[in-house]
Amino acid sequence: MNPHLSPPDIPAGFSFGATHCGIKRSRLDLGILVSDVPASAAAVFTTNQIVAAPVIASREHLQKAHSQMRGVIVNSGNANCCTKEDGYPASVAMASKLAEELRIDHSQILVSSTGVIGAPLRVEKILAAVPHLVLARSADAGAFEEFARSIMTTDTRPKWATAKCRISGKQVRLLACAKGSGMIQPNMATMLAFIATDAAISPSVLDRALRAAVEPTFNSITVDGDTSTNDTVAVLANGMSGAPEIAKASGADYKSFCKALQSVCKSLALAIVEDGEGAQRTIEIEVRGASSERAARQVARTIANSPLVKTAFAGADPNWGRVLAAAGRSGVKFDAARTNIWIAGVPVCRGGCEHPFDERVAHQKMLAKYVPVRVDLGSGKSSWRVWTCDFTIEYVHINSSYRT
Amino acid sequence: MNPHLSPPDIPAGFSFGATHCGIKRSRLDLGILVSDVPASAAAVFTTNQIVAAPVIASREHLQKAHSQMRGVIVNSGNANCCTKEDGYPASVAMASKLAEELRIDHSQILVSSTGVIGAPLRVEKILAAVPHLVLARSADAGAFEEFARSIMTTDTRPKWATAKCRISGKQVRLLACAKGSGMIQPNMATMLAFIATDAAISPSVLDRALRAAVEPTFNSITVDGDTSTNDTVAVLANGMSGAPEIAKASGADYKSFCKALQSVCKSLALAIVEDGEGAQRTIEIEVRGASSERAARQVARTIANSPLVKTAFAGADPNWGRVLAAAGRSGVKFDAARTNIWIAGVPVCRGGCEHPFDERVAHQKMLAKYVPVRVDLGSGKSSWRVWTCDFTIEYVHINSSYRT
Repeated sequence: MNPHLSPPDIPAGFSFGATHCGIKRSRLDLGILVSDVPASAAAVFTTNQIVAAPVIASREHLQKAHSQMRGVIVNSGNANCCTKEDGYPASVAMASKLAEELRIDHSQILVSSTGVIGAPLRVEKILAAVPHLVLARSADAGAFEEFARSIMTTDTRPKWATAKCRISGKQVRLLACAKGSGMIQPNMATMLAFIATDAAISPSVLDRALRAAVEPTFNSITVDGDTSTNDTVAVLANGMSGAPEIAKASGADYKSFCKALQSVCKSLALAIVEDGEGAQRTIEIEVRGASSERAARQVARTIANSPLVKTAFAGADPNWGRVLAAAGRSGVKFDAARTNIWIAGVPVCRGGCEHPFDERVAHQKMLAKYVPVRVDLGSGKSSWRVWTCDFTIEYVHINSSYRT
Repeated sequence: MNPHLSPPDIPAGFSFGATHCGIKRSRLDLGILVSDVPASAAAVFTTNQIVAAPVIASREHLQKAHSQMRGVIVNSGNANCCTKEDGYPASVAMASKLAEELRIDHSQILVSSTGVIGAPLRVEKILAAVPHLVLARSADAGAFEEFARSIMTTDTRPKWATAKCRISGKQVRLLACAKGSGMIQPNMATMLAFIATDAAISPSVLDRALRAAVEPTFNSITVDGDTSTNDTVAVLANGMSGAPEIAKASGADYKSFCKALQSVCKSLALAIVEDGEGAQRTIEIEVRGASSERAARQVARTIANSPLVKTAFAGADPNWGRVLAAAGRSGVKFDAARTNIWIAGVPVCRGGCEHPFDERVAHQKMLAKYVPVRVDLGSGKSSWRVWTCDFTIEYVHINSSYRT
C-alpha cells in the first residue's frame, strides 16, 4: 500500500529520527522531524473540548514563533492528556529539550503525544533520549520510515504518502506520514499527521491550503465516531526547493500546491480507514442529490457511523434498509420516494423501495477491499463523500481488552 | 426478570391472542390485543423520516376514530417498510380484517409490524389467520404471555410489566409488554410497546401522561444509536375498572396514574436494554451538575452511544478517559477541571484527571449485570439518566450475518 520511498521523494532540508525511549514496552515510541531552516507552519487540532497538553503547548508555540517552526517531537504510548498539572510542563519540556539540542527557541518546536489517556507521562525517559536522537537524525528514506513507525499505536502498519508539484516551473516535494486506527471521527480523530514540504509559502496561505485539504480528507473519515483529544495535522514548508514563494491563496501556483497537499492528505486519510481497528474493508459513502454540501455530509456521516450499517458490511450483506433508515434519522429532510441507493455498483433501492437485484452478486461484490455506496436523495445538486470501515468482531476484541 | 403473571394482574375487559401465521419460519408471528369496549388511546411513534406503512395507518386510524380504539394487531418477521405501493394497503387490510371479525370500524384498530425492512409483506397469510385468532382470544395470563412472545424478533425473551394504582380509592391495573433489542436509540427505537389499562381517562390526558412517561424511559435508552422506522408505544385505557375518569392532567388521581404508567414504561425500557443484542450488562449513565436537562441528556447520550465506551464495558475496563473524551465531543460546553467521574461506585476521575483507585476492585465491580456510571460536570444543577448496554462480539455476530 505504501509507495516505496526513494531519495528523490525527500523534500530538501528535512531530517528525521526515531528511537525506543521506554514509554512503550519495546517498539519505537519517540520521533523527531527537523527542518534545517525555519519553515512556515500551519496546523489543525482536535475539536474535542477535552484537549491534551501537547495540543495546548503546540498552539501556543505556533503563535509565539509566528508560525515559523523548526520541527516536531512526538511520543507514542501515552497521550499526556488528563494528566493534571504535570501534563503541560511535560509537553513544554519535550519541546525545550529538542530546541536546546538544536540551539533554537523552544517555541519553534511542535509537540504531539498519542496513546493512553490519563496516565502520567514519564517525560524523563523522553528527555534522556533526545540528545542522541538529534545527533543520529538523517535525511534518508529509512529515517523517515522509522519516524512514521514511531508515531504508531494500534496501527498495524506505517502510513506515508508523497507528492510533487511544479511551482513556477520548479519542482516542489511533499512527504507526509500519519497514525490512527481507532477513535477516528470527522473533525480530527485520534490521528496525527505530519507533512514536510520544501515549497516556499507564507504561513497564512499555508494555513488556508491546509484547511481546504483537511475538510474532504481527514475530516471525512470515521472509524468509530469517537473524536480524540490529541488530533493534530501539521505541515512545515521550509522553502528549500528554491521555488518562488506562494504568497497568495489564488493563482496557478497555489492551486498546484493545494492539489498536491490534498493528494497526500487523501492518501493518508484512506490509509487510516483501511487500517481501522479490525477493518476488513473500506466503505465509501457518497451522498448525492442533496440540497447542500452540509446536508450531504450530515447524511453521509450518519450512515458511516451506524453500527448496523457497519456490521452489515462486515458480513458483506447488501442491507440497504439499514442505509436508508440511517439516512432517515440524520436530521436532514428528504423525500424517501425520490431516493435511490447503489451498493458496490448494484442498484438496490429505487424511490425508497427495493429494486430487484441478485443478492448473491451483490454479496460477492461487497467482499472487495473497497466498497462504494451511493445514495442519491433526488432533492438537489450537492454531494459529499465520507469513508469508513466495516465493524468487525476484531474491533470489539481490540477495544474490550482490559486496558488498551 | 419478568414477574409471574396471575389473573389479578389482567386489567378488566381485555383479551389477547397469538398464533404462527407463516411470516416467520416457526415461531409466533401474529398477535392481537382487544378491548371489550372502546378505549381511550394514545401513542407515540418513530421520529425517523422513513416511516413504515403501519405507522402511517395507525396515525390515521387514531385520528379518524377520535382516539377511541378497540385493539391492536401486530405481526413480527416483516416491518412492512419500504414496501412500495403495497405496504399501506396491507396495513389497512390487517386492521380491516380484525375489525370485520369484531364487527367494528377498521379505524378503531391500531396496526404494527416489526422485522425485515424492504421485503414485501405476505399479508394474505395474516388475513387467513385472523378469524381463528379472534375466536380463540382469551383474557388469561397465558394468552397475554403468548401475545408478548408473538411480537419478538431478535429478542431472547418476552418482556412485560404490571402496575396498579388507586384512582379515588378504586384499584386500576396496567399491563404492558414490549419488544426490541437492536436498532435502539432514543426517540423511539425498533421497539414496540403496548399498554392496556382499565383506568378511565380522557384521550388528551392519556396522551399527556404517555408523553411524560416515555421521555425518561423509552426515550432514554440506546442499544446502538440506530432509530427504527416502525417504533410505536401505544396505550389503551378502557375504563372497565369502574374507577372515576381522570379528566384533567393534574391532581392526585392523575399523578397516581402517571406514576404507575412510568413504572411499567421504565421496567420495559430497562428490559429492552438488558436484552440488547449481545449485551452482557446494563450501563446506567447519569450526568449531573449540568447547566440544563437538555445538556445533561446530550452528554449522557453521547457517552451511551460511544463504541469505545461500550466496548470498554464489554471488557469491564474502568477506562474513564473514554467516558470523558466522549463527553468532550458531545457539543455541550463544560469545564473538564470541574468534572468528576464514578464507575460502578468507584471514584475514578476528579477534576478531569485520574483519581487514584484500585483497578482490580473497579474491574470486579464492573462485572455486575448493572453498572452505574456517574459524571458530574460541576457546572449546574440539572441531571439526566440514559441506559445502554455493553458492545460485545455477539452484537457483531448477530448483525453481520448475511441478511438478518
